[in-house]
Amino acid sequence: MHRYLITGASGFVAQHFLAFLQETEPDCTALGLDVHPSSSGTFQFPYEAGVLDLLDGPAIEKVVLDFRPTRILHLASFSSVGASWKAPVDSFTNNTNIFLNLLEPLRKHGLSARLLSVGSSEEYGSVLPADLPLGETKALNPGSPYGVARVAQEQLSKVFAEGYGTDVVMTRSFNHMGPGQRDQFVIPSFVRQVVQARRMGSKVCLIRSGNTAVVRDFLDVRDVVRAYHGLFERGRKGEVYNICSGTGRSLDEVLSLLSEITGVSIEKETDPTLLRPNELMEIVGSPSKIKSELGWGPRYDFRSSLIDLVAYWEQKLGEQERSPRENQR
Amino acid sequence: MHRYLITGASGFVAQHFLAFLQETEPDCTALGLDVHPSSSGTFQFPYEAGVLDLLDGPAIEKVVLDFRPTRILHLASFSSVGASWKAPVDSFTNNTNIFLNLLEPLRKHGLSARLLSVGSSEEYGSVLPADLPLGETKALNPGSPYGVARVAQEQLSKVFAEGYGTDVVMTRSFNHMGPGQRDQFVIPSFVRQVVQARRMGSKVCLIRSGNTAVVRDFLDVRDVVRAYHGLFERGRKGEVYNICSGTGRSLDEVLSLLSEITGVSIEKETDPTLLRPNELMEIVGSPSKIKSELGWGPRYDFRSSLIDLVAYWEQKLGEQERSPRENQR
Repeated sequence: MHRYLITGASGFVAQHFLAFLQETEPDCTALGLDVHPSSSGTFQFPYEAGVLDLLDGPAIEKVVLDFRPTRILHLASFSSVGASWKAPVDSFTNNTNIFLNLLEPLRKHGLSARLLSVGSSEEYGSVLPADLPLGETKALNPGSPYGVARVAQEQLSKVFAEGYGTDVVMTRSFNHMGPGQRDQFVIPSFVRQVVQARRMGSKVCLIRSGNTAVVRDFLDVRDVVRAYHGLFERGRKGEVYNICSGTGRSLDEVLSLLSEITGVSIEKETDPTLLRPNELMEIVGSPSKIKSELGWGPRYDFRSSLIDLVAYWEQKLGEQERSPRENQR
Repeated sequence: MHRYLITGASGFVAQHFLAFLQETEPDCTALGLDVHPSSSGTFQFPYEAGVLDLLDGPAIEKVVLDFRPTRILHLASFSSVGASWKAPVDSFTNNTNIFLNLLEPLRKHGLSARLLSVGSSEEYGSVLPADLPLGETKALNPGSPYGVARVAQEQLSKVFAEGYGTDVVMTRSFNHMGPGQRDQFVIPSFVRQVVQARRMGSKVCLIRSGNTAVVRDFLDVRDVVRAYHGLFERGRKGEVYNICSGTGRSLDEVLSLLSEITGVSIEKETDPTLLRPNELMEIVGSPSKIKSELGWGPRYDFRSSLIDLVAYWEQKLGEQERSPRENQR
């Protein structure tokens, strides 16, 4: 009966991970930590949502010693690449400090909890087409302060695993998609706009966006959390695993599939403010390692993920229309 | 007429860099910073040695704004790999913080000073014989908390150079040798012991050491500082350069050469406390990049460096015998 400590508990990945536990491990206990308050939800297992600033090392140490987790899922991060360019020192030091605040008590007190250190495809940074799909042995060349912090997090994990025997497993997680993701991300932003147009009876939706020719590797968040759970169960200590689909999709492809699903025609307009300098045209990962070691593979195909997302935004926008005040909170 | 700001100014590399400036750029001005007091020396050019804790960000920012360096040589570090295993969080955060305290004012105030970020061969970490000699494109796999901090320092440098145009050039510096190096390092420790034995009239010297079969890449510190100066002059912004000889030498080879030079027979005894777990057998770098871009190459061959070191320790031990009180300071 595992005791899960989950950081970044108010986020959408954490909520899907809790839903996964509900289905597969209902005898567990969980404690969520976040700097933002979040709901304790309605889970069958004991779940508490605590508010804590992860930059407060002694407070985290106390939580770890009091709660005695057997598994720690570190999802919290200052994850905006854009913000990391505006405040590089804060982004770097905050991301590495919140991670060390969690990692160090395990070493210091010789705890045997397994820590899943969630990293990012941003660690790869600038890559050449010949490097695709990206495998875990590829040299890391992070291209943002955020990316550098993620590399440091991963390399510290490895050093702690090898040097002190701390039980850490690391990921490099690529793009996620799924219900609950905020519409500041590209796919939910597209879906919200198209669903909104359809609800208003429009047959056409104008989408203003950055470069829609870019290719990314999107994985359904429900496949992501199943991969994370698999790594708790059978990942190898001190090893890093790509979490990705292995399939690249251009945003143009996403838009045309979305048009087909919703029956709304999409007109594209380039928004120069959304064009990013030096944006990489194509980022696709190889999931071979986790596939061969864990037998994990995606269960949601991209089209059905998108259909679920359309249904989610239909419901969400409907609720907002019915209770506009709720929306303003 | 350049204005040099040098961190870690009390260290032996800084002292050799100042001596190099004295010979080649006597119209410069220099300010040394160190947490330890150091002598202002007797240079022809204006040189001040200041005491400052580099963890004090606002103080460094003020120094940078007041002194307005055109070139910054960042030699200061918490450089003990062993200590980094004892206090991993301090080693990581202190090394990255002192560097960011120096780097960030350049970005924040849009200063055009060139910063030379001195890194370490420890960034490569665990390597396979097939990877030797190590080139700059080799994937980094640091094996200690200290090594991870050095990788972060280098990657932050690259991101600042590419993202903000900050003028940073990076090194991965391999083993140094030369007059003034403290005898906690392996070569000066060997030389001191052998010279001490000879001064006492002994024909034989017992050397207790770790594994003397390990192969390392040693470069004379006078070649090191000439390489650093070359990078200030002609290194490319945002690029990293190995600083090494390209030649591997086992400690056994060092000992037999030392025996030949001094006429003292050396008996080896393994000291188990000096054996390091997972010590890499062979670390050799490739200096091809700096050679081809700058035309730099080592001028001191290993044998003459060792002869100079023997002379240095002869003199130093002689002085200590003549004024034992001096020695106790």
